Parts: sequence; C-alpha cells; structure tokens
Amino acid sequence: MKRASAAAVVAHSGGPTAVLNASLLGVVEEAARHEQLGALYGARFGMDGILAGDFVELSRVGEWKLRSIARAPSSALGTSRREMGTAELECVLDVFRKREIRYFFYNGGNGSMGTALELDGMARRVGYELQVIGIPKTIDNDLLETDHTPGYGSAARFFACAVRDIDADNRALPGQVEIVEVLGRNAGWLVAATALARRRAEDGPHLIYFPEERLALAKLLGDVEAVYRRWKRCVVAVCEGQLDENGEPFGADVRAGSRGSLAMNVGHRLAMLVMQHLGLRARSEKPGLLGRSSSAFVSETDWREARACGEAAVRAAISGASGQMVTLRRERGESYAVQTGLVGLERVAYLERPFPEEWRSTEMLEGGGAFAAWAAPLVGDVPPHESF
Amino acid sequence: MKRASAAAVVAHSGGPTAVLNASLLGVVEEAARHEQLGALYGARFGMDGILAGDFVELSRVGEWKLRSIARAPSSALGTSRREMGTAELECVLDVFRKREIRYFFYNGGNGSMGTALELDGMARRVGYELQVIGIPKTIDNDLLETDHTPGYGSAARFFACAVRDIDADNRALPGQVEIVEVLGRNAGWLVAATALARRRAEDGPHLIYFPEERLALAKLLGDVEAVYRRWKRCVVAVCEGQLDENGEPFGADVRAGSRGSLAMNVGHRLAMLVMQHLGLRARSEKPGLLGRSSSAFVSETDWREARACGEAAVRAAISGASGQMVTLRRERGESYAVQTGLVGLERVAYLERPFPEEWRSTEMLEGGGAFAAWAAPLVGDVPPHESF
Repeated sequence: MKRASAAAVVAHSGGPTAVLNASLLGVVEEAARHEQLGALYGARFGMDGILAGDFVELSRVGEWKLRSIARAPSSALGTSRREMGTAELECVLDVFRKREIRYFFYNGGNGSMGTALELDGMARRVGYELQVIGIPKTIDNDLLETDHTPGYGSAARFFACAVRDIDADNRALPGQVEIVEVLGRNAGWLVAATALARRRAEDGPHLIYFPEERLALAKLLGDVEAVYRRWKRCVVAVCEGQLDENGEPFGADVRAGSRGSLAMNVGHRLAMLVMQHLGLRARSEKPGLLGRSSSAFVSETDWREARACGEAAVRAAISGASGQMVTLRRERGESYAVQTGLVGLERVAYLERPFPEEWRSTEMLEGGGAFAAWAAPLVGDVPPHESF
Repeated sequence: MKRASAAAVVAHSGGPTAVLNASLLGVVEEAARHEQLGALYGARFGMDGILAGDFVELSRVGEWKLRSIARAPSSALGTSRREMGTAELECVLDVFRKREIRYFFYNGGNGSMGTALELDGMARRVGYELQVIGIPKTIDNDLLETDHTPGYGSAARFFACAVRDIDADNRALPGQVEIVEVLGRNAGWLVAATALARRRAEDGPHLIYFPEERLALAKLLGDVEAVYRRWKRCVVAVCEGQLDENGEPFGADVRAGSRGSLAMNVGHRLAMLVMQHLGLRARSEKPGLLGRSSSAFVSETDWREARACGEAAVRAAISGASGQMVTLRRERGESYAVQTGLVGLERVAYLERPFPEEWRSTEMLEGGGAFAAWAAPLVGDVPPHESF
C-alpha cells in the first residue's frame, strides 16, 4: 500500500524525439489528477540529474509553459546516454530513499527498459517500495510488444517528406545520383518510410536498403547503374548504420558511441564510390539529427499517442503496477484506433524488433502497399507533389 | 511594335528553389491577361528543352493543376546548368525564329542573367525582334540591385528552423560539438539566417562563419574550445563553400561543378578535425538540398513575391521592355511592403552580392539585431522553443 502522498520522478533516456515532451505533458497532467502522487520531479539530463539531485519540480510549472514545452521537439528536461551499472543504480535508490520517491517513470528505448527492469528488481531485493513504469520512446520503432513507438511517426514523416522533396529536386536537375542518409543503426523502419509518397516507377526513392541485410558494394553499384540507365537519375535511401558484405561501413569514418562504434558519413562514402566506380555525378544529403528534432514534421497522431503513453504510465503506477512498460495496441477494424496496454519490462528490455522481411520490397513500401497502409495513420498524409 | 499575338517561352536555370513554381504561376497567370501574348511555352529542363524543342504548352494547363504545381517545391518544368556559348545561343534564336517566339522569360541567378543579357544583345545584332526579361531566383540571395531574391526567404526559413531544432537536440544531450553544414558557396546570407531564433548566449548557433572570409583552422578550434568550456556543448553553422586560411576546403572531398569545384563534406571534415585536435565528441549534419526543396518551410511572403516577380516580368515585356531583370524594392516605412522594379541585366549579370560586413556579428544576426529585423518579413516568424 502507498502512503498518503509519495513523490515521483520522470526521466528521459537516450536520443531525443520530436514528441518526448508530449509524453512529459501526459505524465504531469495525469499526475495532477491523483492525490496519491505528491511532488513530481523531472530529472535534468536523465540519470545524471537523479544522481546529482538536479530536478525540476514539474508540479509547480505553469500550465502555459508546460503546454508550450510539450510542443517543442527534443527533451526539455534533457536526457542522457549514461550506462547504468549496479553501483550507479544503488546510488539512484539512495537518492529515491532520501526524497521518499516511490514512483519512477522512465522514458526510453529497449536499453533504457533494461535499466528500468534492473532498478525494479533491485528495489524489490532491498525491500524499497518503488513502482517503476517504462514509457516507450524511439524514432527507430524497434521496441517489441507495441504496435509502434512514440517518436517514430514524426521521424518517419520527416524522412518521407525529405525524400519526396529531394526527389523533386533531383527530377528537375537530372544526371545525378542522390544518396539520402537516413537515421537508423540496425532497424529499417525509418528508411522504409522514405517511400510513402512514391506512386510511380519514376518516383524516388528508386532504391531503398535495409540495415537488417548486408549490402554488397557490387550490388549497390549494379542497382544504381540500372536505375540511372532507365531514368537518367537515381535517388537512394540508405541508413547511417548500413554495412557492406564484410560487415564494414563502406570505408566510412566511425566514432565511438554508447552502443558501439557508429559510422559518421556512410551517405557521403557511397556517393564517392558511385562517382569512382560508375563515373556518374553523385552527391549525398544527411539531414541527420534534424530527422528526430524537426518540429515542423510532428505527426499529430504521434504527438497525441506520446501524451497518452505518459498518462497511461501514471495510471498504471497508481493502480499498483511496476516493472511494466506502456504499449500501444492497434484495435481491429476499418478506422485507426489505439489503446494503451502494459507489458513486462523483461519482454522488451535489450531486444530489437527488425523491419519485417515480408515488407522489404518497393511494392510494400510505396503508397498502396501493405507497409504504407500500416504506417499511414501514424505518419499522416504525405501527398506526392504535382508535376507536368 | 509587336504583331497581333506572339508566342512566349519561360525557362528555368540553375538550382531549384522552393518557390520557383510560384514564379511560373505568375508568368502563366499574367500572360493570360494580355492578348498580345499567344501561346506560352515552358521549356523542359531549361535551355536543354529550348534546344531540343521540348516544351510544355502552359497556356493549356488547367488551373487546378497549375495551382497545385505552384505549391510544389523545385522546378516542375525542370531546369539546367548548361553553359551557353555563342553557338548555343544562336541555336536558341533559330528555335525562337521557327516558332515565332518573341518573348523570353528567364528565371535564374546572376550567371543566368548573363546568358539572358547575351541573348538579348545577339537578337538585337541579328535584327530578331525579341524581348528578354529576367526573373530573379536564388536561395543564395546574392543578386545585386534587388532588396532580396525569391527563393531566399524560404531557404533561410529552413536553415533558421533547422539550427534552432538541432540546437534543442544538442542542448538535451550536451557534451558534443555539432557542425551544421549550410548551403552557400560564396555568400553568407543563408548561414546568417541560422541565428534568427537565437535569443541568449547559451542558444545555438554559438559560432557562425561567413564564406566571404577565410577561416583559419586554429581560429575555428580555439572558438569551439572556448564555447565548449562555457556551455559544455557547441553548435557551429558553416557553409559548404567555407575555405580555410590556404583557400582550401579543410581537406574535404571535392567534385567538379558548373561553377568550379565544390567541396562535398566540409561539415564532416570539421567534425573530424574537432575530434582529432580537441578530443571532443563531434558530429555533423548536412541537410543539403533539402534546404532549397523542403515544401514545409516555404515562407508565404517569399511565395507571394516569387509569383509577383513572374507577373511583373510579363507586364514589363508587354510594356516594351527588354534586357531587364525584375527586382524587389522594399518601401520605406514601419510596415513591410515591396514593389517590383526593373534593372538592366548588365547591372546584375555575373556579379555577386556578399553578405554585408557590418552584419557579420552575433548581435546583428540574432533576434533583435539589424539583420534579423531586415530578414524577419521575408523569413516569417521563427520563435525559439520553450524550455525549463
């Protein structure tokens, strides 16, 4: 049983999204509806803020400010990629103990759900009464057990519109191969979305590659040459994490990251290789982090669902749940509708959901295909541009 | 004197913009108001289409389609970077003669205005009655004799919002240097616009460099280190055409272009140099062509002015002018208003307008500064994001 009124903490983890602040709004608004919840603290820069005792008292932030923040992209609280070992988690529990924090809402991806799972287990083992609820967040859409993840719809909208618009540019000035580098290390959900405005064979992206499959350089070059021969131009969508037949990033520069080394310039490397091997003009674009932070491409459905996940997390905690993550369940039927649900953290922690193999074809991806039908409600309308 | 009804051609030249099709709409709509103008042909892919006799008969395109096209970015007709020598221009006149084309509307930048000037002179010399009117277009805003150029306001809006949003991301996950590569070879008008949402010293972009000035690597590294020491993060806006103290692009890969070689990856090179020399985490984003083709960032003022320039070009030709380019003249007074004007092509051809030296400081660029006041009506409101 809970005491009369206990404090709560909400923290962000991992890369920001365009709707992370909407989930924050959901947590704050729902928390205000329940007397069991007293002070609600927002950790500055995720786990770093918890360890340092650096909090924003969210229950005291004015409504206008909070609603403005909820419309801003990125994380207004700040987030963190800090690795959390046992020692760090013990420190977190110490902070919680001192402030009598009994609710913890952790907004992140599959790695963060692993951290939440460990914290939940540790609290049980040491007998500290704590309810841990995960709120899903990732532009990569690679969390299991949920139809999709808040943050994905907006990032998918960004890349669908970006490739549509870059294709219009390439169409107007043909004679060029255009490589668009898309966010995504291991999962192809975002690169798949680049086809959503595609209707005809001449529309770009003409080639889409999935990071779930290695891509032999010879295959890429052959594909590009064939498209170029047909249309005198070629638009390619490829993930930043795409690997070649040797498991290497095509000779790209790499830098160390929290989840291993990450290539920095795969798109540019591929443009160079196309120029060198095929003698064609080529260039690359890398919208990069803009794909997760551009407020102009927020999908309203994504925003509403992000907020609903924040609300659902608070309701779950109030109802006594712990060690669970909020999910989105798509209802059966003609029109799109979702319900929130809950799943044990152990079923999502550290696990990745790849882009389905059966959808990895242009026909499935472009307007009219099965993936497009699945994605349309999350992403919103991405109409093709009119042309002569 | 014109014959009863003569044909006209409109053609695009150089890189597309987000509002080039609005100028096309202006030409078509205004042409329909004047009986002197008979058939109006749109050249497919600029001069290439004229030479090949590849035209769209614009006077027969339905209004709904035309208005939809006018809202699409890029060039629906297609454009070209073809260099036009005397022999090619003679071929153009041959095509015009065969089709009795007496009006030529050429939509481009300073190089294209040079081509228009030469064609105008050649027609006079050979006694072919032709009226040549230039319609200004460039995202670079580097045309002389006009307050600003259609295409700039929308591209400036893109980069102002892009750097504001990337800054929000960098703020949420500090400990990183973020290099944003901005379109622009020689002129700093676009990179200047990246400061439009900036209000406080902690807001990015913390550093803005102008391609009009060489940038010593040591200065860049010193600047970045100082900002990083103060804010534990740093957002840098730099042009794709930025050169170092030796007049080289910091070791970037280059490729041949119509206007000489162009660096392909200056932003990435700078991120690598920051990592190597300062030992800081760094990355780069290159929205690239998205900056000129993103329909989501069209400035309504830019769109209206682009259309007005198309209309003014037709009126100028009807009134007997030739060898002139349409300009935008800002009216004096409290509220923003422009009138179209005309200037001799010889006063704009091949000339570049640099970003003014007196505006090259953060104070001038950010919200409240003189450049920001100048740019605001063209770009539209770029409000900073709310934060805690």
